[in-house]
Amino acid sequence: MDFKKALELYNEKKRLMRAYGHMMGVMSYDSETAAPKNSVNGRADTYAVMSEITYKLRVNEESEKVLEVLYENKESLDKITRKEVELARESIEKMKKIPMEEIVAFSKISAEAQNAWVEAKNNSDYSIFEPYLEKIVAFNRRTASLVAPEKDPYDYLLDNFEKGLTSEQLDNFFSKIRSALVPLIHRIIEKGDVIRTDFMSRNCPIEKQREFSDYLMQVLKINRDDCTIGETEHPFTTNFNKHDVRITTHYHEDLLVSNMYSVIHEGGHALYELNTGDDLYGSELDNGTSMGIHEAQSRFYENIIGRSEAFVSLIFPKVKKLFPEQFKDVSEREFYLAVNKAEPSLIRTEADELTYSLHIMVRYELEKKMIRGEIAVKDIPSEWNRLYKEYLGVDVPDDKHGVLQDMHWSGGMLGYFPSYALGSAYGAQIVESMKKDLDIEKLVRENRIDRITEWLTERIYKYGKLIDPAEAIQNACGAEFDPDFYINYLTEKYSKIYGL
Amino acid sequence: MDFKKALELYNEKKRLMRAYGHMMGVMSYDSETAAPKNSVNGRADTYAVMSEITYKLRVNEESEKVLEVLYENKESLDKITRKEVELARESIEKMKKIPMEEIVAFSKISAEAQNAWVEAKNNSDYSIFEPYLEKIVAFNRRTASLVAPEKDPYDYLLDNFEKGLTSEQLDNFFSKIRSALVPLIHRIIEKGDVIRTDFMSRNCPIEKQREFSDYLMQVLKINRDDCTIGETEHPFTTNFNKHDVRITTHYHEDLLVSNMYSVIHEGGHALYELNTGDDLYGSELDNGTSMGIHEAQSRFYENIIGRSEAFVSLIFPKVKKLFPEQFKDVSEREFYLAVNKAEPSLIRTEADELTYSLHIMVRYELEKKMIRGEIAVKDIPSEWNRLYKEYLGVDVPDDKHGVLQDMHWSGGMLGYFPSYALGSAYGAQIVESMKKDLDIEKLVRENRIDRITEWLTERIYKYGKLIDPAEAIQNACGAEFDPDFYINYLTEKYSKIYGL
Repeated sequence: MDFKKALELYNEKKRLMRAYGHMMGVMSYDSETAAPKNSVNGRADTYAVMSEITYKLRVNEESEKVLEVLYENKESLDKITRKEVELARESIEKMKKIPMEEIVAFSKISAEAQNAWVEAKNNSDYSIFEPYLEKIVAFNRRTASLVAPEKDPYDYLLDNFEKGLTSEQLDNFFSKIRSALVPLIHRIIEKGDVIRTDFMSRNCPIEKQREFSDYLMQVLKINRDDCTIGETEHPFTTNFNKHDVRITTHYHEDLLVSNMYSVIHEGGHALYELNTGDDLYGSELDNGTSMGIHEAQSRFYENIIGRSEAFVSLIFPKVKKLFPEQFKDVSEREFYLAVNKAEPSLIRTEADELTYSLHIMVRYELEKKMIRGEIAVKDIPSEWNRLYKEYLGVDVPDDKHGVLQDMHWSGGMLGYFPSYALGSAYGAQIVESMKKDLDIEKLVRENRIDRITEWLTERIYKYGKLIDPAEAIQNACGAEFDPDFYINYLTEKYSKIYGL
Repeated sequence: MDFKKALELYNEKKRLMRAYGHMMGVMSYDSETAAPKNSVNGRADTYAVMSEITYKLRVNEESEKVLEVLYENKESLDKITRKEVELARESIEKMKKIPMEEIVAFSKISAEAQNAWVEAKNNSDYSIFEPYLEKIVAFNRRTASLVAPEKDPYDYLLDNFEKGLTSEQLDNFFSKIRSALVPLIHRIIEKGDVIRTDFMSRNCPIEKQREFSDYLMQVLKINRDDCTIGETEHPFTTNFNKHDVRITTHYHEDLLVSNMYSVIHEGGHALYELNTGDDLYGSELDNGTSMGIHEAQSRFYENIIGRSEAFVSLIFPKVKKLFPEQFKDVSEREFYLAVNKAEPSLIRTEADELTYSLHIMVRYELEKKMIRGEIAVKDIPSEWNRLYKEYLGVDVPDDKHGVLQDMHWSGGMLGYFPSYALGSAYGAQIVESMKKDLDIEKLVRENRIDRITEWLTERIYKYGKLIDPAEAIQNACGAEFDPDFYINYLTEKYSKIYGL
């Protein structure tokens, strides 16, 4: 096979894969937002067919030959195709070690597992979800042993979500966090209840909250013709290309900030995808480079920007306008303090910035043990509850508010959670670097968040998958990742808030 | 190729086609309900890839050979596969006469045309949509000339939606309707404004209207785990299998009945799909047999049931409960009369039962001329307006309330509209037959619409595409289609309402 022929075959296959990926992505979005409950079996059948088709399209002699020829001639490829070929080779090396039948079978299981999880959560009944989690853990252990038998299986999974990440690094990372933050949290608890939050649970009509979401999207300068807001139990972001991004949120009448910070968090994910380079459109690289770098964006906009004094000052007039009765006796300062109150709690997505990482630690410890076979799936709830007591000092009343709160495991994602903590830490380092170029506080007060997004676009967003996570951090910070920025950021912010 | 091999290949191809059909269907639903505006180009690319893949999968030597072998051995096939093979042969005979490139190009055009239509409608600017309609008409003329050069091109299109239907039959049908109903409408207009409707435009909050939709679905005995309600500009129903049906509706604060009758109409479509036989699940036959028979169901539930005295009596207490202020001075009788008020108007979907067919006549006349090349696409708005004046006596103020009101042409569907009028006429004949077995009025008053649905299921729904439209009518009525039932039904109902 000559180079020209290989390139032709490669481009044709890419076009097909893109179409399949697009359709499967829309189907998955639909399953979370619109599909009726009983659609699950029909969808599982279709997923099974599609995972077989896409496996065969990727893993076959011709495709491997094509990649080989292109790789041998990589100096003749443009930089985008070259990177695609490198990533495709890595991916196929993994994929071909897993028998197709197992991938197909797993695609059916994970479609069913998501429904089982919803039902288990609604009924707070772990036993409904347990058999599926059993299979999900088994599949992940199995693929780890097939693809990287020489590696620790959890390290294999971590590397899938964040290239190069190991449990050794994370053990270090979490141990630093633990030793720095737990004492800080204790000092805050000792100070007692100094922040007023009575107004946080006042009833805010959902129609008005929807208006507030639209306003927040404007503040983030997100073009709604490229990005819609859906509604789901668990907010998420998905994207099919830079002109078709979807965020979702959830509305609770008695919890305005839940929607508020969901929109800003998912909006951060959306901004990354909306600002990948035009040169990447139609390529395999027009996505965020890793889950950690993605969460760095979402948690940056949610917390470092969204829970700053400047941001609260910018948006509080709108809060007062939309909910005049609910906030008539609340000052801007009180609202700022309330959205930053540190308090060990049960639900990760509602956690404050300070205690958030401890929620991730619980999941990290559990995932490690699950994948290493050090804990039985049936024992996970009791271990979950024990760790929440140990790290956060809270009693878990039931599995709905415990082990069943998050959807990630039901989707087959084991090894994803650490990227949330990592992302928060990336963000704290990035903002220090950004401060050298921009007066962030001033820009936020002047409703110019687009300037902040531009800074990130130039250093990270526009490159999509052209750069690895480590390169993204290097581009933005001019240095390697260093978790101390995160610890300093939280210590400084919370010492100030609580006057320690 | 032996029979066994042919059957094996056939079943494998069916499994793939079903998966592709499912995904393209979800993608289309998503495009109407959730996708951002700028998603159109990405979707058009994916549609183009998929229409190429599915064309190649259907039209190739091996597939034709498979169908030939199966057809030669049709006595050995179960009845479902036999019918599938017959339909597939017919469909491929048509498809192979159209070059793949033209089908692929058209799939892109129709994806773009839908966005253009939305924009044209929003701006009431026909010129935005005109170039797309031009291409849609050209494609339909072209395919008619390729597939059935011996036939009148409009007859070819009609036959696609309603097997066996011809413009000669429709000319007869509409001329009967016209000569019977237009004088009736004139007598009603002469009687003057005797029906009170002032309360029909009172403000009803959308959240409450959503509750009302849920209630109506209960009355129709639709299992919501199999069927969801979405929101779109133009209500429609789609389905991927009998456990995954989607209806959509639209909410206007000042037009409660618009949503009410949209839900009942689309609910009728849904009931047909939800009640196809379990033996058809996974086959190519698990859909309604034709558009005419489908519209017969939707318009039966909407009008013959939904606008009956018994139905109004059943649901009016709920109306009063949900909207106590808005209906405090309204009696059940007044509500019944208001939802049946006959009045020539501009918008088809909001038209009353009596004048409805005249709206269809306008579209029928125009489509015939378009397809036969007797009118230029640029002249359609003026001809539309002229016909509305002639048939309905109304002046069309702008294209938004005229030629741009319906989405069908933008989706490439020419020849579909007559099935609405035909469906209404089918329904009137079916109900006469049903009356021999059921006390319909009593069942409705007792909230037992499920018994009516069962009757229809036994005669029509459970057979899906196993039966042709003519067989469906024969099964339900024990006779051939006869439009006189429709004329008698409307004459009797409206003479009574207006005391003529």
